[in-house]
Amino acid sequence: MSQVYADRRVRLRDRCAAAGSAAALVSRPANVRYLAGGAPPGAVLLVGPDPGTDLLLRPAAEEGEPLDGRLDELLRQQQLPLGAGDPAVAAAELARRAGADGLAVEEHDLTVARYRSLGAAAPQLRLADLACSVEQLRVVKDEDEIACLRIAAEIADQALGELLESILVGRTERHLALELERRLVDHGADGAAFPTSVATGPHSGRRGHRPTDRRVEEGDFLSVCLGADYRGYRCEIGRTFVIGTAPADWQIELYELVFAAQRAGRESLVPGAGYRDVDRAARQILDSAGHAETAAPLTGHGVGLEIDEDPQLSPSAMGKLDACVPVTVEPGVHLPGRGGVRIDDTLVVRQEADGGPELLTITTKELLAL
Amino acid sequence: MSQVYADRRVRLRDRCAAAGSAAALVSRPANVRYLAGGAPPGAVLLVGPDPGTDLLLRPAAEEGEPLDGRLDELLRQQQLPLGAGDPAVAAAELARRAGADGLAVEEHDLTVARYRSLGAAAPQLRLADLACSVEQLRVVKDEDEIACLRIAAEIADQALGELLESILVGRTERHLALELERRLVDHGADGAAFPTSVATGPHSGRRGHRPTDRRVEEGDFLSVCLGADYRGYRCEIGRTFVIGTAPADWQIELYELVFAAQRAGRESLVPGAGYRDVDRAARQILDSAGHAETAAPLTGHGVGLEIDEDPQLSPSAMGKLDACVPVTVEPGVHLPGRGGVRIDDTLVVRQEADGGPELLTITTKELLAL
Repeated sequence: MSQVYADRRVRLRDRCAAAGSAAALVSRPANVRYLAGGAPPGAVLLVGPDPGTDLLLRPAAEEGEPLDGRLDELLRQQQLPLGAGDPAVAAAELARRAGADGLAVEEHDLTVARYRSLGAAAPQLRLADLACSVEQLRVVKDEDEIACLRIAAEIADQALGELLESILVGRTERHLALELERRLVDHGADGAAFPTSVATGPHSGRRGHRPTDRRVEEGDFLSVCLGADYRGYRCEIGRTFVIGTAPADWQIELYELVFAAQRAGRESLVPGAGYRDVDRAARQILDSAGHAETAAPLTGHGVGLEIDEDPQLSPSAMGKLDACVPVTVEPGVHLPGRGGVRIDDTLVVRQEADGGPELLTITTKELLAL
Repeated sequence: MSQVYADRRVRLRDRCAAAGSAAALVSRPANVRYLAGGAPPGAVLLVGPDPGTDLLLRPAAEEGEPLDGRLDELLRQQQLPLGAGDPAVAAAELARRAGADGLAVEEHDLTVARYRSLGAAAPQLRLADLACSVEQLRVVKDEDEIACLRIAAEIADQALGELLESILVGRTERHLALELERRLVDHGADGAAFPTSVATGPHSGRRGHRPTDRRVEEGDFLSVCLGADYRGYRCEIGRTFVIGTAPADWQIELYELVFAAQRAGRESLVPGAGYRDVDRAARQILDSAGHAETAAPLTGHGVGLEIDEDPQLSPSAMGKLDACVPVTVEPGVHLPGRGGVRIDDTLVVRQEADGGPELLTITTKELLAL
């Protein structure tokens, strides 16, 4: 596995060198993990002029502190002594002593205070902006990463499937959410990919709804959104159900609308499609039914080491999809006071010759009455 | 309640004015919540030259997105339209249009990228550093805040008490942690204050241990650390138990040592005591028994709207305790390969005339064999 991380660092090194910086300082935890295999709390990664100078710097901590992932064994690492301060400052000093004149830093991650400390500790160093170089490397996944996402999706499907077999009426949103998170772990997840959302009745269809003490009632819409974290890779699935009796006409109508929008979004996932085109495909169906106001700011987003990463499938997003990019497609409509529908899948963009978009979350999207 | 938030903003306004800035931009979520009653995702608070100019700016979002807390109803707020970008940039423009020439920002929270956008959007505005002004206001709690912490501690005590009555042998760390988190919510918590830590056998005594699939065995040390979030206020309790049989001699000896260190720390919590003196009181007991190397970088920390806030009770901390400051006292020892002990309480510093330190987490600290 270590070669994977070394190769990723080579790609970053090449980008930096092309941009005129001999060294780069990576501080954003998901980026550290991507390049080093693991991200100890507070650690930063110095990517130097050649592979032998790469170094993971960890802050002072006691033995046994948690570590995200499994560190690349070939990567040198150094733990700072107690009281040594910010590893980013130590990294800047090391870069300067190693003869680097320029250091590219993640200006979208470093706070102004940390940035000033770097500048004060190594004033000879010309600080440049690494910007989202590592995030850009992360967009297209390799097959090992996709395999982790596939397992994460299987786990989420299993947890959701078990919930559907249990009695739901009378239970609170909070309890259902906690039960789903327990089932994710039962099936092998390292944890929930994000806080599980369970929304009943008037809450249903809201994006990111936080579970309350409201109980499931007959006739409710129930919308659920959950995901598993498997070896750091995070997927997302969202479904909406009807509780008890046969769905009302307005529920069927709204469900069919959101389903049509979600299908249009999924079907537009082809290499070369613009991010905004995927958004438009789903959004125009909701708009034409008069739901332009209540629609979400985005139709979907990339997933990977973070649950919300590039690309953003939104009206103003620039860029085009590549093969092997996993994204969510998650349109929804929420009618204030009545509730709504959200349908959310994680898919991987694939060439048509490879069978088109690969659906990772395979729980049925029929409107089930539970 | 709203008057509380308005009064807090007055104190911040006075500090800013004294430092030469007519306006302040608060971006750190816990600070926004402290001053506005709630922190919608991505919102920033502009504290202007007078109360009528205070404004909460929220990013574009769909209806029903989650909100931390309950917003001060008297505070003006404004939601930005879709595509309007960063509320911090909008706030800087508003401050400039309102005639402010200086704006103090949280340099320890704003990223370099956001800071540069502010500067570009309002180049006439002189940006200053608000530094940790709001965090400093947050250190001493009022009695309403302490009441929330007291309830949070009661909830954690209840969840832990119920666990102790159940059968533990054979269950995994992960399952015990999930059960504790469910019980926190059952007893009225808004959620866990931080990821619950359950550590068995060789893992026991590690600070921040992440639960694994290891099962509880006879003869194990079991150390548990959990906390409840009640209306945003977060407490912390940690206890260590022995499973099954009577404890071994080394277990009794280690437990008594950590207990003595923790008691020394608790007893040193008096108004006027130096932060480092509290640390030293606990640390020297562990040091003198030869555990200097394995001891944690700190003995305790403040709690409130964040689980780890000022003050830090560590060897290099500067400053003295005030009355009405809630802190943890949580020394521990972990022996690699064998396990260890951690004992953690949340207490409020009180004048001796008021009865001395108020213990919020009241679960027994006897060494229980379960």
